Order: sequence, then structure tokens, then C-alpha cells
Amino acid sequence: MNLYQKKIVILISGGLDSSTVLGIAKTKGAIINGLSFDYGQRHKKELIAAKNIASHFAINDLKVIKLDLSLWGGSSLTDTRKKIPLNGSKANEIPNTYVPGRNTIFIATALSYAEAINADLIGLGVNALDYSGYPDCRPDYIKQFQKLATLSNRRGRENNPIKLWTPLINLNKIEIFELAYKNQVPIEQTWSCYSGGAQPCGACDSCRIRIHAFNQWMQLEKSS
Amino acid sequence: MNLYQKKIVILISGGLDSSTVLGIAKTKGAIINGLSFDYGQRHKKELIAAKNIASHFAINDLKVIKLDLSLWGGSSLTDTRKKIPLNGSKANEIPNTYVPGRNTIFIATALSYAEAINADLIGLGVNALDYSGYPDCRPDYIKQFQKLATLSNRRGRENNPIKLWTPLINLNKIEIFELAYKNQVPIEQTWSCYSGGAQPCGACDSCRIRIHAFNQWMQLEKSS
Repeated sequence: MNLYQKKIVILISGGLDSSTVLGIAKTKGAIINGLSFDYGQRHKKELIAAKNIASHFAINDLKVIKLDLSLWGGSSLTDTRKKIPLNGSKANEIPNTYVPGRNTIFIATALSYAEAINADLIGLGVNALDYSGYPDCRPDYIKQFQKLATLSNRRGRENNPIKLWTPLINLNKIEIFELAYKNQVPIEQTWSCYSGGAQPCGACDSCRIRIHAFNQWMQLEKSS
Repeated sequence: MNLYQKKIVILISGGLDSSTVLGIAKTKGAIINGLSFDYGQRHKKELIAAKNIASHFAINDLKVIKLDLSLWGGSSLTDTRKKIPLNGSKANEIPNTYVPGRNTIFIATALSYAEAINADLIGLGVNALDYSGYPDCRPDYIKQFQKLATLSNRRGRENNPIKLWTPLINLNKIEIFELAYKNQVPIEQTWSCYSGGAQPCGACDSCRIRIHAFNQWMQLEKSS
């Protein structure tokens, strides 16, 4: 997609995926407005990473929205009484790190921001690996949200809808590491761990997927 | 719809429409959890009305979510530099009181709350009169959101989707006054004015529609 001088809102969590979307958009010459959420997450530390990555890429602006989803919890990320799974999640089951409605709220808020500043696109780091676990990361979900986005606002009515851009949706984590590297993402500054400690726990699903893919990617790099 | 002992999340703005949805749900014997938004609106006074109405109907719980949409404005309700139209809005034009993405964010957040507490329904006061002005109050928009809601979460995956319930969608304001009256809504405690003063301005679109409909309804009541 041609992003040169296009205005884009990117959801920036501070993790590898959204940082990679940011890196690709920067390489393509987009005008980037970031959006992060202080939503009552256990791993609030990711917001420091989000600011660092935004600063690294010298983006146009970064808004941090406060929205306290711990008011009703429903996830181990927003309710500290629930334990983060540290031995891998069961296949075909939605893990308890799934936060009810989170992506729908985040994309809706990005849509508000994009319409207000007249941006053309919303960049999202959703990807195929998340597909197995979280219902709100699937390609079908994104397609449906695009239809809603088009119907919901002034831009859609003017036949110039705001587009959801998901460049990682069909990639696995190894391919994402490769893209991150190619697009100057400071991988060491990104933060993926769910556990909320000072250092990554190495055991939560997010850490396990990241470490496994990183090791595989390094091997591929060495052998190429 | 049979709501007896059904758990429902209702978006409560403090205005006539959402208060009427609340009244209907109460009459039908639903278990009601209210959700209001402190979103940087000029007429923050509506939140006092929301609390009063919730208290009048002795609902199960009322959550007030803070989410500052004035960070990017884009509406006369969230940016005080823009003036509220006081002489009526032009036909076929979206008035500047439209808040980008507001309904999408509100319904998404209600979906998060409903999933976390395992509610069956989300009650919304959108109606046909709003249809002319705001793109995110149209029946098509609600239908599309239902599809997204079903795809987005655990409940949809279990073939037990959370339903969007919009009992006022095809009614006009006079019919809504009648329903409010029949369902013991304390109409005098509801707040519709956009202007943010101590008393309703009587001139903004919301006041004008309300006053006009109220007068017509009173005449119908007298003649019946």
C-alpha cells in the first residue's frame, strides 16, 4: 500500500507487532499519529516502551488515552486476582489474557481520532499467531470492522472511508521479526511480557511466543 | 422481547431516550447494569441526571467510565472553541454536535462490560429522529455492529451472542415521550441540552426537538 505522505493513526502497545507496523509506515513515508491505552493493564510498563518506540521513530504525535477496564475486569490482564498462565494455554481455548472487548474499544477510539484529524488509515498490529487464541484478531473480525467503520462516520458517507491497515495479519512471528529488523525497529526496546514485572517473565504466552520465534529467526539469519 | 430476569447493560446518558430504555427494561423485570461516560463533554451535567435516573429505578449497578475525547475534539460537544448551533441544523448535513466515533466507542465499551459480567443484552436509546443527522444512529449501523459483536467475543464463539436491543429505533420523539410516561420515567429529571449551562438553553437541536415533541405530546394527551 502506498503510504507516502498519508496521514495514519497507529495503535501502539509497545510490543513487537505494533512497533513493526510503525516501522513499516515510517519506511513508507507516512505521517504517523500514535495512540496508546492506559487501560488498567497489569503490564502498564508497555506504555514506557510505546513512548520510547514513538520517540525512536520521531512520529508526529502520540496520544495516551486513559480508560479503566479494571472496573469490570474479566481478564487476567485487568484483574490481578486472576493468574497469568505460565505453562502455555490449551489449544482451541481462549486464554484468560483475552480482555473482553479490548480490540473493539481500541479500534473504535482510533476511528474517533482518525476522523477528528482527518487521517486516511488506521494501522493495526493484529496477526495470524493471535488468530488461534483471541477472537478479535481474526481476519473476519477486521473485515467486519471495516464495514462498520465505513457506515459509522462522515468519511464513509462521503465515499472516502477510513481504511483499516493490517500488514501483519497473515504473517507469523518469525516473519514479523524479519520485518521489524528490516524497518529499523529497536527490537530490544519493545515490551511483550504480560506479567507486569521489572523484567520479562519468560513464561507467559506472550514471552514464550516471542522467545521461540526470536531464536528461530536468529538461526535463519545465521544460516543465510 | 422477554427481558424478565435477563441481565442487561444499558448505556445511560441522562437524556430522555436512554432513560426510556431503562424504564422499559425495568417494567419488563430485567437485571440492569448501567454504563455512563465522562468523555470530556461540554454538558457534563448530564451525568448528574444519569445518576439520578439510575437511582430512581434502583438499578443493580452504574459504572461511569472516564475517556477524554476532548484530546482530539472534532465536535462542538468536545471542543469549546466550536459553537453549538442554536438556530437549527441544515437538512442532510451532519451537525457539528456529532462526535467522531462516539457511539462506536460507547457500544464497544458496553460490549466489554457485558461480556465481563455475562450479560445477555445491551440496551441503546438510538432512535429514528437521530437518523437524519448522525450516521452512527442508523438501523444499518446497528445491524452491522451486531455482526461485529457476534464475531468479536467468546459469547459469539459459543453461539450465544450478546444482543443489541434498540426498542426506540423506529419511534419518533412524541412516541418516546409516551413510552417514558408509561414506564414511570421521571421526565423532569432527564437532561437533553447540549449547551452545558445551569438551565437548558432551549435553542440547541436537542432542546428544540425535545420541546417541540413535548408540546405535541401534551396536546395529544389533552385531546385523548
